[in-house]
Amino acid sequence: MSEQTPSPYFDRRGLIFVLSSPSGAGKTTISRELLRLDDNLVMSVSTTTRPKRAGETEGVDYNFVDEKTFTRLTKDGAFLEHAHVFEYFYGTPRGPVEKALSEGTDVLFDIDWQGTQQLASDKNMGADLVSVFILPPSTEELESRLHRRARDPDDVVRQRMEKASDEMSHFPEYGYVIVNDDVEQSVGRVQAILEAERSRRSRLIGLHEFVQDLRGID
Amino acid sequence: MSEQTPSPYFDRRGLIFVLSSPSGAGKTTISRELLRLDDNLVMSVSTTTRPKRAGETEGVDYNFVDEKTFTRLTKDGAFLEHAHVFEYFYGTPRGPVEKALSEGTDVLFDIDWQGTQQLASDKNMGADLVSVFILPPSTEELESRLHRRARDPDDVVRQRMEKASDEMSHFPEYGYVIVNDDVEQSVGRVQAILEAERSRRSRLIGLHEFVQDLRGID
Repeated sequence: MSEQTPSPYFDRRGLIFVLSSPSGAGKTTISRELLRLDDNLVMSVSTTTRPKRAGETEGVDYNFVDEKTFTRLTKDGAFLEHAHVFEYFYGTPRGPVEKALSEGTDVLFDIDWQGTQQLASDKNMGADLVSVFILPPSTEELESRLHRRARDPDDVVRQRMEKASDEMSHFPEYGYVIVNDDVEQSVGRVQAILEAERSRRSRLIGLHEFVQDLRGID
Repeated sequence: MSEQTPSPYFDRRGLIFVLSSPSGAGKTTISRELLRLDDNLVMSVSTTTRPKRAGETEGVDYNFVDEKTFTRLTKDGAFLEHAHVFEYFYGTPRGPVEKALSEGTDVLFDIDWQGTQQLASDKNMGADLVSVFILPPSTEELESRLHRRARDPDDVVRQRMEKASDEMSHFPEYGYVIVNDDVEQSVGRVQAILEAERSRRSRLIGLHEFVQDLRGID
C-alpha cells in the first residue's frame, strides 16, 4: 500500500513522522512494523548517556556518549531535540535527519511530547512535521501492559503510570490521534497517515512546472 | 484497510471529500471504486437541469428539475454549491449533506474548482473539507483519453482540452495532489487520504473526555 519509491513526476522533501504515546500503548511494536513495511522510512539513531545493554550496537541502536560530551553537543546545537528521561539523556543528532529529508527520505521519531514540542518549534523542521498520538483503549489495558514487564519493581510501574498520564495530557498538540486496540489495524492507520501526508500538495516540489507542462505552457 | 465502522471510543463528524480533476484524468473510475470499497462514504445526489438520459433514475442519479425550479432553489440557498457546465445547471442540495455529516458519514463530491471554492467558503462546511486534485500523467495521455469517447465531435474535444487546462490551473487550491498513472495505486492513495483524515484530531468528538478517563480524572 505505501508509496515505497519516489514519484517519477516530481521530487518531495522528506517528512518528520513523530509517534508519541504513553509507555505501554504499543508504540514500539507499531514503529517496528512500520519500518519493516516501508522502504522510504528510516528511524533516526539517537545519542544517549544510558549505558549500552547486551545486544545493542554503537551507531545502530544508539550513539553512546558520556554526559560531558552530551552537554557539549547540546550547547553546540547538534541536537534537533533532546530529553532527560529518568536518569539519562537522549538526543537526536540534527545532521543525519537534515540529510535524509533533503533526499526525500522520511524519518520516524519515537519521542515524547517534550521532544515533539522542540521539533515543532524548530524553524527548519516545523513544516516537515507530521505527528500522531497513540492512545491505549483503556486504563485497565494500559496498567496491564505496564505490569507485564515483570522485571520492573512496583515503584517504577507507578512512576510510569504517572508519566503516562502526563504524556496523555498533551494529546491536543498532535495532528492525528489513534486508539491502539488492535495492532494490525493501528499499523494500517499509521501507514495511511504517512501515505496521505506524502500526497500533500505543500510537500511536492516541481508541481507548478509539471502542471504547466500538462497545460502546454512553456 | 478503510475504517468502515464508527470508532467505539468517540464520535466523529463526517467529512466532505472532494475529488477534482480535468475531464479525462480518471476521476469517475476512482470515485466509483472508492464508493464500492468504503461503507462509510456516500455520494451526494445532485440536482440538474440536464435532461434525463436512458438508464438514469430520478433521485438516484440526479434530481431532475427545470430551470425555473433550479433558479428558485439557488435563490433560497438550497445548494451547497452550484455550477453552469456547458448548457446545463448542476447543484448540490444542502440538507442531505448536513444530515450525513452530523451522523458521521463522509460525503464524496465529484466537482470542479468552482464548486470546491464555494464549499471552502461555506461557513458551516469549510472545516469539514478535504480536497484532492487528480492529475493525468501527461498531456498525451489526457488527449488520448478524451479522444476515446468517440461519439464526441472534435470541437467538443477541443473545448474539453481548454476546460482541462483551466481546471488544472487551480491545483494550488487543493490539499492533496495525486498523479493517476495507475488506477489501482490511485485508489489506494485516495483511500489512504480518506482514512488519515478520519484520524485527524480536530475531527474527533469527545476525545478530551476519553483521555481524562484514561488518566483517571473525573
